[in-house]
Amino acid sequence: MADQEAVSQAVQASPEVPVLRWEEPPEGPVLVLLDQTRLPAEEVELVCTDVPALVEAVGSLAVRGAPLLGIAGAYGVALAAARGYDVEEAAELLAHARPTAVNLGLGVRRGLEAYRRAAGGGAGRAEAAAAALAEARALHREDAEASARMAEHGASLLHELLPGGTYRILTHCNTGRLVSGGEGTALAVVRAVHRTGRLRRLWVDETRPLLQGARLTAWEAARAGMPYSLLTDNAAGSLFSAGEVDAVLIGADRIAADGSVANKVGSYPLAVLARYHHVPFVVVAPVTTVDPETPDGASIEVEQRPAHEVTECAAAHGPGAGREAGGGHLVTPLGTQAYNPAFDVTPAELVTAIVTERGVLSPVTPDGIGQLCAGSRRAAMS
Amino acid sequence: MADQEAVSQAVQASPEVPVLRWEEPPEGPVLVLLDQTRLPAEEVELVCTDVPALVEAVGSLAVRGAPLLGIAGAYGVALAAARGYDVEEAAELLAHARPTAVNLGLGVRRGLEAYRRAAGGGAGRAEAAAAALAEARALHREDAEASARMAEHGASLLHELLPGGTYRILTHCNTGRLVSGGEGTALAVVRAVHRTGRLRRLWVDETRPLLQGARLTAWEAARAGMPYSLLTDNAAGSLFSAGEVDAVLIGADRIAADGSVANKVGSYPLAVLARYHHVPFVVVAPVTTVDPETPDGASIEVEQRPAHEVTECAAAHGPGAGREAGGGHLVTPLGTQAYNPAFDVTPAELVTAIVTERGVLSPVTPDGIGQLCAGSRRAAMS
Repeated sequence: MADQEAVSQAVQASPEVPVLRWEEPPEGPVLVLLDQTRLPAEEVELVCTDVPALVEAVGSLAVRGAPLLGIAGAYGVALAAARGYDVEEAAELLAHARPTAVNLGLGVRRGLEAYRRAAGGGAGRAEAAAAALAEARALHREDAEASARMAEHGASLLHELLPGGTYRILTHCNTGRLVSGGEGTALAVVRAVHRTGRLRRLWVDETRPLLQGARLTAWEAARAGMPYSLLTDNAAGSLFSAGEVDAVLIGADRIAADGSVANKVGSYPLAVLARYHHVPFVVVAPVTTVDPETPDGASIEVEQRPAHEVTECAAAHGPGAGREAGGGHLVTPLGTQAYNPAFDVTPAELVTAIVTERGVLSPVTPDGIGQLCAGSRRAAMS
Repeated sequence: MADQEAVSQAVQASPEVPVLRWEEPPEGPVLVLLDQTRLPAEEVELVCTDVPALVEAVGSLAVRGAPLLGIAGAYGVALAAARGYDVEEAAELLAHARPTAVNLGLGVRRGLEAYRRAAGGGAGRAEAAAAALAEARALHREDAEASARMAEHGASLLHELLPGGTYRILTHCNTGRLVSGGEGTALAVVRAVHRTGRLRRLWVDETRPLLQGARLTAWEAARAGMPYSLLTDNAAGSLFSAGEVDAVLIGADRIAADGSVANKVGSYPLAVLARYHHVPFVVVAPVTTVDPETPDGASIEVEQRPAHEVTECAAAHGPGAGREAGGGHLVTPLGTQAYNPAFDVTPAELVTAIVTERGVLSPVTPDGIGQLCAGSRRAAMS
């Protein structure tokens, strides 16, 4: 404890490094990113003066997390415009910097459309660039506000579910400042609970294979001065049977129309353990995570990831950590095959509640999901 | 598949390296051990010419696994006697080479008592040494026979539970040749099933934090030419929900009088998943694993292991791998606390059957456990 608190305080003594920020030094505007591939070993910032640099940062996972990628995409368009590069070409490059990140494309489109509107309306280049930047800032602000509202709704839900106490919360993967323009999703709720002195302990799953829990969530928890402990994913069962978990809070990659939740592999076993031990299992995600086009859990296609993520153990130091490109240490016999799904699917009946910026959905039903998408705040509120 | 089979065949082409063997070259008897700290990267043998060398091998985990440690202990006494060292002193050294390994002390005592009986009966030094060696060989043989019987009983149980098919078996940690004088416990059953062509796939949990599944079970599976796939421990849930697991087979560190099973951390979550998905959860262990002195699961003291096992990821190469002494790569922020229990406890009601060398106990009840200890073969048979 002493050790950890000492570190937490040392860490807090220095101000929190912004995950992404726009700067306008005399030599021209830049986008400054916290290099997530260097965490937790080092807090190093990357300064992007043009779009190719930003595209490289996206590719190397220096900047990651669906909402944050969208924000970076919008700022990238603004950067190209402000620096006088070909904006259409820059947008094209950015939108394809990572294949599967939907939000990246959406953010890029928002920035580009604002630029086109202004330019089409006869605005000068500088004005159009300002319009793109304003749009990027708006997206950044909206995402931060959504985080704040999820945190609020999640904290009151915990207060309802577990009246009057302090909480021992188990979380999986990384769902905090590092994936968001604000404080994130599930971890934003944990931060809100911590601010009100209600966080007794945060249990952090290491989250194999890429160790985002050990590398990133532990870093955020230490940064925020939270009482936290790291565990191997398979040790969660011992915590449940010892009665040491009051609630499980996780994020979501996609939520189907029937309320099935796709999230980082390892979420489903936690849901089954939580049900077996009568512990609330809460999903925190913005409404944009709900995909009405996906009818149910079975129709969610599960991405299979490369074997080397499992056959190797990645070191934390340097850009190799958590990369898709190996660089870890071989642990297994050569030629070992791996079963390595990127995420798993938890059926609605195992989910106690879904917390969104619009409110809390509980119980999780297809109708509730439908009304959530329809934007009916009343219906979405529990 | 191609890759793996190529490797498996290449591996099979060379004969299996014995895990432990007694040799008598002209320059005097030696105990030869397969150095488990170098697996799977290298198959290197350690030649122990005296007890201090063997004590070092035990301490470094070059030789590990409860039954195998007992066998090594008995051979160690024989080695000291055959080489003309002080046998009592050697036994004392060996018995304390590792604090928690009960079998080590038991094996040493068996060797020592055989030596004393012979010496006390007026036998010469050489005869007494021969008596100690005979006792070590007897223990080695008994353990191999127990493995063979567990394999037999386990294979017929699977045939009863899953008639007429081939099996996809999920296992955790390492329970094979590397922990035994024979083929081990759970993995001995898997080997028997594989020999009869019934093994459709072996799902190998990597088994964080020390990765005995990834390092050792994968090596044994490749060596035996089994169809196997490695997975992170948290991916087992996806296999269960996809209907890809026909049975879970694990070993045991200790079985309490009420049938609660203590085994490597991560076993309990598998038991809960197996129950949720109606999949048999089978424990394979020799009768000596049952501890009548431990009334129930709650009275099993769970060893908490050092944080560095979780905050670091161990590389496979070299003696650092899987050691208790760190040497891995730091993954987390400095000062991170870890919750790192060595094993967890599965209550009897989640255990479909316990397979021992005396037969199969199913259902697992306190009475059944009692009769198993009393050695009643009939009562122990299902």
